[in-house]
Amino acid sequence: MKIKIFDSTLRDGAQGEGISFSVTDKLKIVEVLDNLGIHYIESGNPGSNEKDRLFFEEVRKKPLKNARLVAFGSTRRKGIEVSRDDNVLALLEAGTGVVCIFGKSWDLHVEKILRTTLEENLEMIGDTVAFFKDKGKEVVFDAEHFFDGYQANPAYALRTLAAASGAGADVLVLCDTNGGTYPTDLQRIVAEVKKTTATELGIHVHDDMGLAVANSLLAVDEGVTHVQGTFTGFGERCGNANLSAVIPGLQLKRGHEVLEEDQLKNLTHGAREINNIANIPLANQLPYVGRSAFSHKGGMHIDGVAKVARSFEHIPPEEVGNRRRYLMSEMSGKTSIFSIIQRVDPSLERNSETSGKILEKLKALEKEGYQFEGAESSFELVIRKFLGLHDPAFEIEYFKTIDESTTAALSASSIIKIRVKGQEEITAAQGNGPVNAMDLALRKALLKFYPCLDRMKLKDYKVRVLDGDNTTAAKVRVLIESTNGEETWGTVGVSTNIMEASLKALVDSIEYNLLKEIG
Amino acid sequence: MKIKIFDSTLRDGAQGEGISFSVTDKLKIVEVLDNLGIHYIESGNPGSNEKDRLFFEEVRKKPLKNARLVAFGSTRRKGIEVSRDDNVLALLEAGTGVVCIFGKSWDLHVEKILRTTLEENLEMIGDTVAFFKDKGKEVVFDAEHFFDGYQANPAYALRTLAAASGAGADVLVLCDTNGGTYPTDLQRIVAEVKKTTATELGIHVHDDMGLAVANSLLAVDEGVTHVQGTFTGFGERCGNANLSAVIPGLQLKRGHEVLEEDQLKNLTHGAREINNIANIPLANQLPYVGRSAFSHKGGMHIDGVAKVARSFEHIPPEEVGNRRRYLMSEMSGKTSIFSIIQRVDPSLERNSETSGKILEKLKALEKEGYQFEGAESSFELVIRKFLGLHDPAFEIEYFKTIDESTTAALSASSIIKIRVKGQEEITAAQGNGPVNAMDLALRKALLKFYPCLDRMKLKDYKVRVLDGDNTTAAKVRVLIESTNGEETWGTVGVSTNIMEASLKALVDSIEYNLLKEIG
Repeated sequence: MKIKIFDSTLRDGAQGEGISFSVTDKLKIVEVLDNLGIHYIESGNPGSNEKDRLFFEEVRKKPLKNARLVAFGSTRRKGIEVSRDDNVLALLEAGTGVVCIFGKSWDLHVEKILRTTLEENLEMIGDTVAFFKDKGKEVVFDAEHFFDGYQANPAYALRTLAAASGAGADVLVLCDTNGGTYPTDLQRIVAEVKKTTATELGIHVHDDMGLAVANSLLAVDEGVTHVQGTFTGFGERCGNANLSAVIPGLQLKRGHEVLEEDQLKNLTHGAREINNIANIPLANQLPYVGRSAFSHKGGMHIDGVAKVARSFEHIPPEEVGNRRRYLMSEMSGKTSIFSIIQRVDPSLERNSETSGKILEKLKALEKEGYQFEGAESSFELVIRKFLGLHDPAFEIEYFKTIDESTTAALSASSIIKIRVKGQEEITAAQGNGPVNAMDLALRKALLKFYPCLDRMKLKDYKVRVLDGDNTTAAKVRVLIESTNGEETWGTVGVSTNIMEASLKALVDSIEYNLLKEIG
Repeated sequence: MKIKIFDSTLRDGAQGEGISFSVTDKLKIVEVLDNLGIHYIESGNPGSNEKDRLFFEEVRKKPLKNARLVAFGSTRRKGIEVSRDDNVLALLEAGTGVVCIFGKSWDLHVEKILRTTLEENLEMIGDTVAFFKDKGKEVVFDAEHFFDGYQANPAYALRTLAAASGAGADVLVLCDTNGGTYPTDLQRIVAEVKKTTATELGIHVHDDMGLAVANSLLAVDEGVTHVQGTFTGFGERCGNANLSAVIPGLQLKRGHEVLEEDQLKNLTHGAREINNIANIPLANQLPYVGRSAFSHKGGMHIDGVAKVARSFEHIPPEEVGNRRRYLMSEMSGKTSIFSIIQRVDPSLERNSETSGKILEKLKALEKEGYQFEGAESSFELVIRKFLGLHDPAFEIEYFKTIDESTTAALSASSIIKIRVKGQEEITAAQGNGPVNAMDLALRKALLKFYPCLDRMKLKDYKVRVLDGDNTTAAKVRVLIESTNGEETWGTVGVSTNIMEASLKALVDSIEYNLLKEIG
């Protein structure tokens, strides 16, 4: 069956603890999801905050390849005409082809939370759906708390669906908003609803019992063809259904049509990109896409996998773009790495000794905490150095940064001494903080030798603390994105010392720029 | 129905990436699980490693209150008499009342991995079970890869169960070892097996599809009464069924008898203790026991919960010993903030002028880049300061951090001068980086005045670079999570200078600790 995936990372996912997306983050995530082939991207609630309004203005500027963009909002408020409701109007202004309207389907919520009558709630649903259908929108109706509502008052819950479909809703989404529905109850209720309507059904589940993925799959078994969730399970409380587990479950285990085969191979990469943008580490244990998902530790298991892979692997990891790891004896071979090797030296064979040694070097750096996803320029420099092709444009002979604070004021300053082709240069700078002071001092010293660096700007600077248990003594990984206005490149540095990690990433970034500008 | 829980944190859980238990760790975890009322504690494989043999010697010295201890091992090897098999003898020597024997039930494994005949495998199962029954043991038989085996060759898979039950096995455990079984398939297969045997059935599922909890619940619906898993989901690849989600699911949602009510109220505490011992942070999103499991962020949700708790909570958090939290963010409304205001001063009215001013203060701080989500303790201190209720435990009069690098080496050091009740203390420390050096120096100076700080530890340290095109000059937000072993609290600091932001968060964290410890 063809199943449509509706991703709400940017809307329901943003309700997750510790998640806060900037407009730029949101635009980047839209691009990742669109490339993955996700069908609907629910990306904000323009009625609830200014930032989302701004985002919708921006996102319209760039057409999507695969996905349809969705704005989210509630039914009109009680006692107000739909065309005069600010939130409804804000939703319309977002200018998306699809809107998702949520309405109450649990009588408790109507009476105790909304504090209106059961009848007016039905009108609110009908009016709002009809309003957007009249404007030519595709309308997804999220029946909030549907399963709790159905268990409390099945007749009323069904009437809320009928109000939406009667007004022209394209999809009726049954929501387990509190995540408390038992799988067998959910299965039965979906089957019962299916008998009452010809409108397409969707499912939206939260993970409060650890059942969100299972309940989504079970709903599809009962005829649901639209599945909502968030890409890596972000969301309020315990999160939403994790789509990076739902998608391969439906496609690889039940043969449903969800993504193209090539897109499915990007699943792992996409999940990592999204979590990088959100600055939330991807859990190692995550099904399909986690770093440990195909990692074997037990000796008998490693032995078994080496004999027959499927003896201890439920799918081949390549199908979702992940890879097998043996935790005792790491071994690998990877197309993406080889493509960078070939960029540096096209004559290198994939199975050559040199390629093997570069792979070993990569493994060793990864063990130290390096990560070259998003920092391919640093990896290219690693290869150049390894092959003896790198001629450093400068050397740092000395640096010192000082942070000093009295009760009155605080200052950060940096002294740096570099050597360029036999010539020394020493200079100093003050900055907003020690990293900034160091950055300014280094550029100041270099500009004398390389005026082209004037065009180079830092675009993004990210810090990730590795293995949280050592806290302030833990390693940090600094990712820098730089641009010369045309091209953008990423570099990385790792150290227990944040200054040193920043300096490494900064030096790589400048080296890479000089390599491109002056060879 | 009475359901018996079989915890394998110490055996299958130890196969998880990054998990390594010492003998002391294992003894501590046995105590935690026993107090929780877990029925079986599978605690090692004495045949596979020396450490487990040592552990069994130790654990025998202290009788358990609730649980039965289990040792785990395989069936005898092919071509050897059971009473001469070293692993079988090691298992016997462990001296537990219960043994868990795993055997192959998938013909592929018998022929390609074990490389023996289907008939000999049946004899290996029968011989081994009979051997332990003869010694008076309770025998649990783990039918490894049962579901894959049943799908490939149902008749043979059933014969392996019959071999075990024929030899006297007390429980037949159906294992989804690779975690790849679809819930509806699993349900059907359990129902089919149930018809073929009168012996008690168990279930053991891995989480490779994100279905381990659901599949465990579904198996119980089909008549299984023994459930295996690991307490917080540790295990190879994506982990085992997370018992801290399985137990309340069965008990609170289906009314099965699992734990005593009091024991269930210790669920959250137990989960945290186990992860503390394993030194693995407990995921915030974990169902029932995670820090975010009952945390509300959306304004409408917070208002809803305040009106009727069950409107957005599937169970009362107290039933599993967790608690409700209102997160503070651009999406949350006044209720969450007011709950913290009331914690500081219960006499303050929601609509009072003072409450209004505190809200304004919060908004101003959020504009500066503060985020109090996960850092409620900092917000509590903001309120205390605002109300004049805060008496600082110390003041920082001066601090200086120096990072210095020559081509040879790099060093970070910090000097700090504090004042406590008129007394000054100046000291210095070196660290792995400037933040670590500062942290060490500050604690060193304070310990003299506040020895209770000895128990306080940093649990997590996170850096987020805030938006803006200034990159290294941008503001950074530092979030710190601290613990005294029992309680965990979060604080925040913001500045363009990462050292200052860290210091602010650190100072708040210490102040909050002292407030709770000495008032």
